[in-house]
Amino acid sequence: MSTGRLRFGILGAGRIGRVHAETLAFRLPEAEIAAITDVNLEAARTLAARCHIPRVAGSAAEIFSDDTIDAVLICTSTDTHAELIVQAAGAGKHIFCEKPISLSLAKIDSSLAAVEKAGVKLQVGFNRRFDSNFIRVREAVAAGEIGAPGLLHIISRDPAPPPYTYLRPSGGLFLDMMIHDFDMARYLLGDEVEEVYTAAAAIDPGFAKEDDFDTAVVVLRFKSGAIGTIDNSRKAVFGYDQRVEILGSKGKIATENRYPNQVVVSGEKSVYTDLPFNFFMLRYPESFALELELFTRAVIEDKPTPVTGADSRVPVVMALAARKSHDEHRPVKLSEVS
Amino acid sequence: MSTGRLRFGILGAGRIGRVHAETLAFRLPEAEIAAITDVNLEAARTLAARCHIPRVAGSAAEIFSDDTIDAVLICTSTDTHAELIVQAAGAGKHIFCEKPISLSLAKIDSSLAAVEKAGVKLQVGFNRRFDSNFIRVREAVAAGEIGAPGLLHIISRDPAPPPYTYLRPSGGLFLDMMIHDFDMARYLLGDEVEEVYTAAAAIDPGFAKEDDFDTAVVVLRFKSGAIGTIDNSRKAVFGYDQRVEILGSKGKIATENRYPNQVVVSGEKSVYTDLPFNFFMLRYPESFALELELFTRAVIEDKPTPVTGADSRVPVVMALAARKSHDEHRPVKLSEVS
Amino acid sequence: MSTGRLRFGILGAGRIGRVHAETLAFRLPEAEIAAITDVNLEAARTLAARCHIPRVAGSAAEIFSDDTIDAVLICTSTDTHAELIVQAAGAGKHIFCEKPISLSLAKIDSSLAAVEKAGVKLQVGFNRRFDSNFIRVREAVAAGEIGAPGLLHIISRDPAPPPYTYLRPSGGLFLDMMIHDFDMARYLLGDEVEEVYTAAAAIDPGFAKEDDFDTAVVVLRFKSGAIGTIDNSRKAVFGYDQRVEILGSKGKIATENRYPNQVVVSGEKSVYTDLPFNFFMLRYPESFALELELFTRAVIEDKPTPVTGADSRVPVVMALAARKSHDEHRPVKLSEVS
Amino acid sequence: MSTGRLRFGILGAGRIGRVHAETLAFRLPEAEIAAITDVNLEAARTLAARCHIPRVAGSAAEIFSDDTIDAVLICTSTDTHAELIVQAAGAGKHIFCEKPISLSLAKIDSSLAAVEKAGVKLQVGFNRRFDSNFIRVREAVAAGEIGAPGLLHIISRDPAPPPYTYLRPSGGLFLDMMIHDFDMARYLLGDEVEEVYTAAAAIDPGFAKEDDFDTAVVVLRFKSGAIGTIDNSRKAVFGYDQRVEILGSKGKIATENRYPNQVVVSGEKSVYTDLPFNFFMLRYPESFALELELFTRAVIEDKPTPVTGADSRVPVVMALAARKSHDEHRPVKLSEVS
Repeated sequence: MSTGRLRFGILGAGRIGRVHAETLAFRLPEAEIAAITDVNLEAARTLAARCHIPRVAGSAAEIFSDDTIDAVLICTSTDTHAELIVQAAGAGKHIFCEKPISLSLAKIDSSLAAVEKAGVKLQVGFNRRFDSNFIRVREAVAAGEIGAPGLLHIISRDPAPPPYTYLRPSGGLFLDMMIHDFDMARYLLGDEVEEVYTAAAAIDPGFAKEDDFDTAVVVLRFKSGAIGTIDNSRKAVFGYDQRVEILGSKGKIATENRYPNQVVVSGEKSVYTDLPFNFFMLRYPESFALELELFTRAVIEDKPTPVTGADSRVPVVMALAARKSHDEHRPVKLSEVS
Repeated sequence: MSTGRLRFGILGAGRIGRVHAETLAFRLPEAEIAAITDVNLEAARTLAARCHIPRVAGSAAEIFSDDTIDAVLICTSTDTHAELIVQAAGAGKHIFCEKPISLSLAKIDSSLAAVEKAGVKLQVGFNRRFDSNFIRVREAVAAGEIGAPGLLHIISRDPAPPPYTYLRPSGGLFLDMMIHDFDMARYLLGDEVEEVYTAAAAIDPGFAKEDDFDTAVVVLRFKSGAIGTIDNSRKAVFGYDQRVEILGSKGKIATENRYPNQVVVSGEKSVYTDLPFNFFMLRYPESFALELELFTRAVIEDKPTPVTGADSRVPVVMALAARKSHDEHRPVKLSEVS
Repeated sequence: MSTGRLRFGILGAGRIGRVHAETLAFRLPEAEIAAITDVNLEAARTLAARCHIPRVAGSAAEIFSDDTIDAVLICTSTDTHAELIVQAAGAGKHIFCEKPISLSLAKIDSSLAAVEKAGVKLQVGFNRRFDSNFIRVREAVAAGEIGAPGLLHIISRDPAPPPYTYLRPSGGLFLDMMIHDFDMARYLLGDEVEEVYTAAAAIDPGFAKEDDFDTAVVVLRFKSGAIGTIDNSRKAVFGYDQRVEILGSKGKIATENRYPNQVVVSGEKSVYTDLPFNFFMLRYPESFALELELFTRAVIEDKPTPVTGADSRVPVVMALAARKSHDEHRPVKLSEVS
Repeated sequence: MSTGRLRFGILGAGRIGRVHAETLAFRLPEAEIAAITDVNLEAARTLAARCHIPRVAGSAAEIFSDDTIDAVLICTSTDTHAELIVQAAGAGKHIFCEKPISLSLAKIDSSLAAVEKAGVKLQVGFNRRFDSNFIRVREAVAAGEIGAPGLLHIISRDPAPPPYTYLRPSGGLFLDMMIHDFDMARYLLGDEVEEVYTAAAAIDPGFAKEDDFDTAVVVLRFKSGAIGTIDNSRKAVFGYDQRVEILGSKGKIATENRYPNQVVVSGEKSVYTDLPFNFFMLRYPESFALELELFTRAVIEDKPTPVTGADSRVPVVMALAARKSHDEHRPVKLSEVS
């Protein structure tokens, strides 16, 4: 940080890489991008031009060996995350990595070991923690605004399912989609889950062919005694449907969806509004900026990152337990799979 | 019905008896009250004066033996329902009985057998089916307005817990409180539940001493493949919190609570409203009137009542299965307890 | 009140007469109905049967001369109100009269003089004051919950226009419809209007032929310096649209419409609810009951009625000033027409 | 546009200059900033560094004489706008100017004449037209979604008053604040106002000392016959309160405020949310970006700008008429002041 700014190297110029590059380039004065790389060099070049990035590197290794670079953003495909973390840590780079690190606990553990050994900082991209709604809920819980939490409900539904070919590589519903909600459950309550029970279904039989589900409810038992549910669906035709609700001893706190406008029409047959946002980048834009800002600041000020290594591991454990619960048709303790 | 009106005898002049008596006296021109009785004769007399009821009977038997009476309202304590149904059916009276008929399946079955043998009509007081919100949801589902239901959530929370001494005689959370929600689940989806899984807790340890719970989530698996949850709490400090939400293949339908007014204040620290209703008679007044109106009309027009004998039995089965699921810490099929 | 109950005679068995009769018969234990009359005796007989009224009188005079009757409800056509008030007062009866007393200030004044001379109580049927929304707003203003009021907006729109033939006899928009809002303005702010300015239009030219309007905005200047507007339309196709909003030095208070249910559907094209109520008896039922209850109690306890003689006169003055403002195309002080 | 991008010179590096510079630098790939100037050169330099602007010019004249510059953004103080427009037009630059051009109709007219003579494009910064709420309302009206508009209400309230010293130079409430609402009224209805009537007050007497108001209602009469009101207050303690509502022959359309989150807390005393945004840059961020994008595109594609010269003049006429209406205590036609 000789320049007083944190110098980033970016690995991956796809959709999420572009979002992060724009944040660093246009919104974070305390950050600068030194280089970018991608297996598709043309994509890297286009994004470099867009974001005033001075250098397109030919490989991740080039970036790791650049001593002027302080930190890396890992925005590549999930199966590469663990190995890139090990390499980046070995090169002494601080690491921001998209979620999840891996679908394998063993790989996560070796990544985290490398990070710990190198003494670098790691943050995983659970961006929803940085959405103003969920921040507000977390703050309320932490401040006791609703007393002791007793019941939690997380609704998390996508507007439309991905192609079937996406399902197996992604790890399936629990590891690909509900993992955000497992993280959210821990974050909102500041509590750990001990046991899960899963009821899942493939309403669209195409999901069953891929050994996956498009609909699931998972019941969570927390250490504190609180009970939670997560509701996932791959298909909410009206748009992103992502809400949480907590009942506490002194009240209830709940979030609503976000809408492109605040317009209400009273017509001859109904009173109506437009649909809520139906794309995650419209629903969660601020959270992508804030997670990078807090990572940058954590590195500069040498403080813990707001999403730690443990935070990246536990949701994978929860996903594995949720799947096991379905397969064995019984409640499963997290300790059985961790 | 020589007078062209349905003549009722009322058994029980307590809180719910009074509600029903006022409905019959003041709101249903096609009904009249011939007589009322109560173990507390003074209460019966007071209500008779209030509602222009010409006769206070000394016992239920007097009412059953009055040939001018067409139908009876059973508003006595739960432990008397089954036997009174048998007697009323034996006397050829049509029967409106408060829920539940009994906490024992055996007693329910003998009651229903008596009703069937006598050929009289029976309706059980699941009044929430007649709330305009839940009617609207049921109609939407039946009409396909949201497509095929995939996920159902029922939130059902009381403002404040009853005294501990109330708990054991009532049958506990599942038989006393969640029974309304078991009925609601079947009603809203027009579908049957095959299996339940229960996560329950006594946040207030006083409930544990009575072998009961103040907080519970039950997961429902429907025949159609739909998945549901019921969330019960004995203590929602802000008031009655009774909402439902269904996600279907073509949309979502959800209800909000009811409030004493539609006023919003934007103050210096927050934007706020008054609390929702916190008493079931303020929350559900119309439903009590409508259930009696539909019962009366069903008898007069010789049509099926909107809540049948089977409707009165299944929720008890569900409650027993939900309790068994908690006790055995596993999902339980309804067929195991029925 | 030898019976301890207030004995009423009802003049008029039309729509509003029926509403009031049912309230007295079924909801107010401290009231009883001694007799009813109507120019249409058949209507009086039907209502008497419905409400257990022991006597159908052949004329208003019969009722006035019945010494057992304490109070009268005047629910006849507007042009008869003033004369009936004079007669009722002369007979020493307390009076509840539908609004307005008369379209003529002279007749109002002679009525009020008769009431004052007789020392009887008078209440005029501005029922909206007794709606839970507007009560809540009034209480907030009176308690200083929003500080000193600076701006008031009253929206008051009917679902559909009356027949053209109704317009002239009714006195037109200001005397027939906006009169409720003139009363509301005074009630909510606890303040008097000094000047009005009117912008009115006949969007449907049929109204212009009757020298009337279907659309109007009236600006109010209050003694306190506060500024208000009233917005009237004869045609809000989505239902009753009756809301108020006040901006004060410490906040804002606003009411929303009432809806038959609290259901929200998220469909494929919009998020929608059913329409608000579109009939005043569905929108304001509780207010009709409460105004009679408070009148009854005011008589029994010998306290002032909540809507006084002055309250019945000022809105007529405001309506006359509003019309004059339109005709002369300038702001008009109330002192010019009073 | 030799580079294929529109090259901008920016005059003024204050608050709004910074907003526009960031939009051009970070969000509009089809734009680039060639130079910036400000009477405070340090401010210009800071903003240049932040936004990668290659040149800080010593004066506006330097920018006008730079042949590589296609367009200028005038973000200086209001009293300089008219003269800078004349100079920019003389230099053949397209012009985006903050509102208003001038408080003097004569100066506006000479500016517009210079623009017309030069054949350059002009857009004035009525940013609220580009807010997603008001766009949605305009589209609904234009598409006939609510039928023919009959009544319009614009609520436009600031969270807190400016210092008294700000008032006289700004031109006062009508020219400084309500001018946005005059523009909004024309935009939303696509109609012209013919007459206004003003009721204004200085609730805080400090405003009266400056010959100004903190509270005003203006009634608008449109050519179509529609009636509107604008409500302005300098002090809405709960935050920005900027809403519109239109009643049409087929329905109503209304906007709500924007909030920092969509969280609702049900507590022991009330159900509440946080306050709406209380800073215009939080309330209207997207509109600032969109107005520049549409200006840039209009120039590049040689199409009319979305806010024309006439659009910049009429609201000033309306403001002058509104003030005259107050001073003369009568309705005033726009033709009297234009």
